[in-house]
Amino acid sequence: MESINKKKIFNDPVYGFISLPYDIILDVINHPYFQRLRRIKQLGLTDVVYPGALHTRFHHAMGCTHLMGQAIDTLRANGNEITEEEAIGVTLAILLHDIGHGPFSHALEHSIVQGLTHEDISVLFMAELNKQFEGKLDLAIRIFNNQYPKRFLHQLVSSQLDMDRLDYLKRDSFYSGVSEGVVSNQRIIKMLDVVDDDLVIHEKGIYSIEKFIVARRLMYWQVYLHKTVISAEFLLVKILKRAKFLARNGSDIFCSPAFKLFLFNDISKEDFQSKKTLESFTQLDDYDVLGAIKVWSNHSDKVLAELCNMLVNRHLLKVQIQKEEFSKEEIEKHIQLAAKHYAITEEEAKYFVFNGNIENNAYNPEMDRINILFKNGSVMDITEASDNLNVQALSMTVRKYFLCYPSI
Amino acid sequence: MESINKKKIFNDPVYGFISLPYDIILDVINHPYFQRLRRIKQLGLTDVVYPGALHTRFHHAMGCTHLMGQAIDTLRANGNEITEEEAIGVTLAILLHDIGHGPFSHALEHSIVQGLTHEDISVLFMAELNKQFEGKLDLAIRIFNNQYPKRFLHQLVSSQLDMDRLDYLKRDSFYSGVSEGVVSNQRIIKMLDVVDDDLVIHEKGIYSIEKFIVARRLMYWQVYLHKTVISAEFLLVKILKRAKFLARNGSDIFCSPAFKLFLFNDISKEDFQSKKTLESFTQLDDYDVLGAIKVWSNHSDKVLAELCNMLVNRHLLKVQIQKEEFSKEEIEKHIQLAAKHYAITEEEAKYFVFNGNIENNAYNPEMDRINILFKNGSVMDITEASDNLNVQALSMTVRKYFLCYPSI
Amino acid sequence: MESINKKKIFNDPVYGFISLPYDIILDVINHPYFQRLRRIKQLGLTDVVYPGALHTRFHHAMGCTHLMGQAIDTLRANGNEITEEEAIGVTLAILLHDIGHGPFSHALEHSIVQGLTHEDISVLFMAELNKQFEGKLDLAIRIFNNQYPKRFLHQLVSSQLDMDRLDYLKRDSFYSGVSEGVVSNQRIIKMLDVVDDDLVIHEKGIYSIEKFIVARRLMYWQVYLHKTVISAEFLLVKILKRAKFLARNGSDIFCSPAFKLFLFNDISKEDFQSKKTLESFTQLDDYDVLGAIKVWSNHSDKVLAELCNMLVNRHLLKVQIQKEEFSKEEIEKHIQLAAKHYAITEEEAKYFVFNGNIENNAYNPEMDRINILFKNGSVMDITEASDNLNVQALSMTVRKYFLCYPSI
Amino acid sequence: MESINKKKIFNDPVYGFISLPYDIILDVINHPYFQRLRRIKQLGLTDVVYPGALHTRFHHAMGCTHLMGQAIDTLRANGNEITEEEAIGVTLAILLHDIGHGPFSHALEHSIVQGLTHEDISVLFMAELNKQFEGKLDLAIRIFNNQYPKRFLHQLVSSQLDMDRLDYLKRDSFYSGVSEGVVSNQRIIKMLDVVDDDLVIHEKGIYSIEKFIVARRLMYWQVYLHKTVISAEFLLVKILKRAKFLARNGSDIFCSPAFKLFLFNDISKEDFQSKKTLESFTQLDDYDVLGAIKVWSNHSDKVLAELCNMLVNRHLLKVQIQKEEFSKEEIEKHIQLAAKHYAITEEEAKYFVFNGNIENNAYNPEMDRINILFKNGSVMDITEASDNLNVQALSMTVRKYFLCYPSI
Repeated sequence: MESINKKKIFNDPVYGFISLPYDIILDVINHPYFQRLRRIKQLGLTDVVYPGALHTRFHHAMGCTHLMGQAIDTLRANGNEITEEEAIGVTLAILLHDIGHGPFSHALEHSIVQGLTHEDISVLFMAELNKQFEGKLDLAIRIFNNQYPKRFLHQLVSSQLDMDRLDYLKRDSFYSGVSEGVVSNQRIIKMLDVVDDDLVIHEKGIYSIEKFIVARRLMYWQVYLHKTVISAEFLLVKILKRAKFLARNGSDIFCSPAFKLFLFNDISKEDFQSKKTLESFTQLDDYDVLGAIKVWSNHSDKVLAELCNMLVNRHLLKVQIQKEEFSKEEIEKHIQLAAKHYAITEEEAKYFVFNGNIENNAYNPEMDRINILFKNGSVMDITEASDNLNVQALSMTVRKYFLCYPSI
Repeated sequence: MESINKKKIFNDPVYGFISLPYDIILDVINHPYFQRLRRIKQLGLTDVVYPGALHTRFHHAMGCTHLMGQAIDTLRANGNEITEEEAIGVTLAILLHDIGHGPFSHALEHSIVQGLTHEDISVLFMAELNKQFEGKLDLAIRIFNNQYPKRFLHQLVSSQLDMDRLDYLKRDSFYSGVSEGVVSNQRIIKMLDVVDDDLVIHEKGIYSIEKFIVARRLMYWQVYLHKTVISAEFLLVKILKRAKFLARNGSDIFCSPAFKLFLFNDISKEDFQSKKTLESFTQLDDYDVLGAIKVWSNHSDKVLAELCNMLVNRHLLKVQIQKEEFSKEEIEKHIQLAAKHYAITEEEAKYFVFNGNIENNAYNPEMDRINILFKNGSVMDITEASDNLNVQALSMTVRKYFLCYPSI
Repeated sequence: MESINKKKIFNDPVYGFISLPYDIILDVINHPYFQRLRRIKQLGLTDVVYPGALHTRFHHAMGCTHLMGQAIDTLRANGNEITEEEAIGVTLAILLHDIGHGPFSHALEHSIVQGLTHEDISVLFMAELNKQFEGKLDLAIRIFNNQYPKRFLHQLVSSQLDMDRLDYLKRDSFYSGVSEGVVSNQRIIKMLDVVDDDLVIHEKGIYSIEKFIVARRLMYWQVYLHKTVISAEFLLVKILKRAKFLARNGSDIFCSPAFKLFLFNDISKEDFQSKKTLESFTQLDDYDVLGAIKVWSNHSDKVLAELCNMLVNRHLLKVQIQKEEFSKEEIEKHIQLAAKHYAITEEEAKYFVFNGNIENNAYNPEMDRINILFKNGSVMDITEASDNLNVQALSMTVRKYFLCYPSI
Repeated sequence: MESINKKKIFNDPVYGFISLPYDIILDVINHPYFQRLRRIKQLGLTDVVYPGALHTRFHHAMGCTHLMGQAIDTLRANGNEITEEEAIGVTLAILLHDIGHGPFSHALEHSIVQGLTHEDISVLFMAELNKQFEGKLDLAIRIFNNQYPKRFLHQLVSSQLDMDRLDYLKRDSFYSGVSEGVVSNQRIIKMLDVVDDDLVIHEKGIYSIEKFIVARRLMYWQVYLHKTVISAEFLLVKILKRAKFLARNGSDIFCSPAFKLFLFNDISKEDFQSKKTLESFTQLDDYDVLGAIKVWSNHSDKVLAELCNMLVNRHLLKVQIQKEEFSKEEIEKHIQLAAKHYAITEEEAKYFVFNGNIENNAYNPEMDRINILFKNGSVMDITEASDNLNVQALSMTVRKYFLCYPSI
């Protein structure tokens, strides 16, 4: 594959400009596998609440790449060696970290593809791209999979303070208009260093890290787990479930060829080994899913049509959120009301009435730590380093229960 | 139709918050005719150059509504009477001013629907909504059509300084990341007044107006008429043309039912008198068009497949821009090259090679003036009021010629 | 005093524009007592660390006034009656809430004036202004002193969520460039309501409040109690102390007449009852203090000259911060070192070596609560209403100890 | 002089962070000659209109230094050689370009010091600093004086597109809150290149340059030449004139020792050759001037007291602006009115009544050009390169006449 290097600067409302420093980065961006991310929104259906939140996984990946360039500069300035080859590798790794995402993958991860996470698919994409680019992604793949000796490079791609999080919090906050989520990326990155092959943050940055953890928690409740977004996403799951049910019972279901493959078949991990399945997957994006749902809102199946109508015209289900589980009686009551209202069976009514729980854990030190480097050379986890309890508090998981039902 | 008034505040990255002051505004926003604007991007294909420019006509309409509220407050504070009924009317008029837009209407205005502008369709929508809302839009329609005695209300909806322009320049600048386009809306609105039933700007605001006109011109060249955007939009026109050609020659063309109606038939102004056609039109949005094009990129017709491929994977045609017309010889040369390269006829090659011109007129005082009110009470057009030539210069039309062809 | 009403809109980098709605507000702003706030920086010496933090108490007072207008609009829209007279009263109260501040009052509150807080002096100023404006400030004064029946009006001026805090956090964050302190004022104000005559925040605003409390804490550590700022402010205290000592021992001390009055005399609460003392106080601002210190850096008294030199040329003392008190031995050691280095007595060396502690209490519910109003009508304090411990944690006081000494 | 390198990152509300890359830069910043710029406002008395415009020459110099770093990066990335030594030199040159400014130098350039521009004084300061830093500023001085072979380095310090202008337009716009002046520095700098040893801008940046020229013009009328600012600045000139007059007639005039030197003597170019005069000049800043004026507002000379009162309490003279000169009769009329009103002589009344003119030339290609580099390699001046007349229009000088007089 030949290098076609034309454009190196992209406008970005978030950072002003994004410079792409290496030809291979541009070549990968120009590849159809990557261009498809232009058609996959970063936040799925979140725009039902925040109409500005239409940014794509494409733009997020470019933002991460931009931040990676800044992180490399800082780490080098602080005396940590990063060779040019490593710089390219780690930049490619962050560029491609989310390439395995399908449409609305937050909601549909287990509806469209079974037994395979988006990370698994990312790995498959990288392998295939590495073939097409004749091995130029070798190092990127090793860094992505944490198989490269310099562990801190992997941590730049995947850890509590990776460029992914730093970009998505800022970007999601920016496009949703939820200014509370704003994170001081620039300051955090300027405080990065490496001790014993681990990323650390200089002591001076401690308040920025606290703020980062708090902002992350707030973004969860206010955006990612906003009750109306939850309601819309589970509605989408129910729509897919009903469509699959009808498809498998011989009903005629309008959809694009690529979507048909995944709707009418159970595509497994093994299927994905074939390049053909992978290619089909690359044809799938938000347009297939929402385009079909719009058509289905006129379907003869009353359940499917009504569900789709709700999503298309934003007449969403009601949602209640509380700290305790909902009682069986309450759920049952709503099922019966719905069955009666729509003149459908109670089984069918469960498409309209459903419950579940959501969790928010702003910082989980057991999985992975944020290390603070003190002037005296000692390193401590942020929960110990912080001068009061609130960071510790934030490391506790908060669970809430929700119940969706039609407003009749 | 019953009032269901729940949400009154929307987050907007541009203004922070948008408050919607009247129940009828919310009811109209919740109507499916309006909700469809969520699926129509304000800037069509501009995201091929500016990846952040994904904002919708829905969000723009809400932004205009927000600015209208500020304009009403200022005008009232300056002693101009606007009754509550008029305030509701003019706010509804701006909310609905663009409701007749179809997908990619900048490019497709004459490809999808013939003999009908989006303004015509807006009027049809308003009439239908007025029926459904039992006459509550009467005054809004009179203001929109400039049939209401207080002429300045119409000017708030449609003139050189209407809320439409004030919002779109700021919003398009914001989402594209082209900071040069930023306009000081707040200041311009604070300077609004009425003299002899015409909107005027207080003398103090004269530099803001100059800046507004300059910003508008820059946005034209840098965003709306960016050569790569031009290339993508005309490519889309060619795709539709080829698809229609194939459709009418009996080829199988994947598309949604609504899209099919417009692709396989010539829908005329008369057809639009039926509510059924209008309803079909409301089912049509960006998802139908781009969803179909993605499928067509695998079509057996080589021309269609290649054109679609170019758009989907962003391998766009080359564009040249110059101040003089392109010679027939040069165009002919590219047609022959393309025909040879793709092994197609010269007639078919014209899908890949085409030329045209674009014009930019930042301020046209012949159509409509921007009036400056001086302290001594006199009123002058901005081109006379400004202390130098540059505003006058901006009122001249600039024309450029473009030529698109494959980079072979 | 006659009304001279000319300018109603001020540019403000923070909010864009500040509109001043009432003539009496403008008249008070134009009064010399208020104009002097133009010459008193809001953050004293903080610009030794954050060179942008030069904004004045004048600008802060105008910002508060702007926010008060928004709060009044929201509260009225939510159905709480605020008469025009009350609106003017509460706006005047916030405009004047800080008028009693002298230069560097954070540091010098007890050095320049004894036995009198800046609040006491504010009350004296208001009384005097009320005389000059013939009773037009009556209501403002009652609200300021919490003597007016509608208690919530006082809370807008002075409480955990008053317009003072909302403005200063945002403004100080803005001008210092510490983006972590940014607070979503607009959202918090939009959530204001009144229950049982107390200000409350609607449930939806709960995360904004959490964020507000966290931001406040961070601003304390990162700006208000930044160790270098502490070092500069205590240096200033020492300078004043030495200057007073010399003055009372007959040394010649350059300073302005107004400064002389306060430097050479102990001005008491009683003295302030005379309009003459009050007028002298209005002549005192940052220019007197820093202007004199610059001259003193050439004084024949070695201690004074060296201290002033440090401040003027920003060769500040070293500061150490820790969680435990410093031992007497350690302090003594530095005193001896300083005495030796400067060839001065140990008594004199204490001007260069001193210790103390600083406290940060982001939220103190015992003093005053932030009430959250739930949809079911119940009202709870934020520490109970929040779904985890971190807000509770923030309500605990954190104390740190500091030690300053010359870097020899 | 020893290197003391501690702090390398400064918070800046405009750019987020300013990194200072070289030790010598920090050493110069820490020198008292440079620290004095902390006490000299960039925009003099402009805060009488824009209360946020309190930023200092210190902050501006650091901003320029920051932009210079970006320019060096871009130029190097575009293949232009800049050695490390040259990078340090050009950065020092921009850091020190304004070090010769005294307080309110826009107004007082010829009142405080005669026969010497601030550029002359800058050169003297650089020479003295070069001595103290043992020749480390040699290259910086050659670049500053355009005596270094690589001419483009000088152009980065002083030309139509130097870092000085790029920073001050943005910074002044930011702090004044006049958003119309915002300039896209980042984009302009990214477009920089060198052809034949001259700075050029890539064709793509042409609209940004147009915008830059327009913004500059608007900032002139709206900020730098705002009529109220003009009125305040000329008032200051009159105050100094009166104070000098009184001083030389034996009147007692309160002021700091440094100010006294310049007020009671005519300091010439020759005097400045002595280090002592230079050192005295470094003691002079805004605090001396405004501090004294505040005291003078109680002076026994009625003229001086009244003039100072006007400035201190912001009861400024009225200003009229027009395109034609004011007639002698009109001026005479105001002089007589003032003389009568204040019971002073007509000669004295001229302190209160004065006229003059102001000019605005947004772009003067005769002095110095902005070169645009086209893809075909040709280079053209922006006025030829731009596709319409407005830039040409902006290169014409606009002159306006003003008349100030008391509002009696």
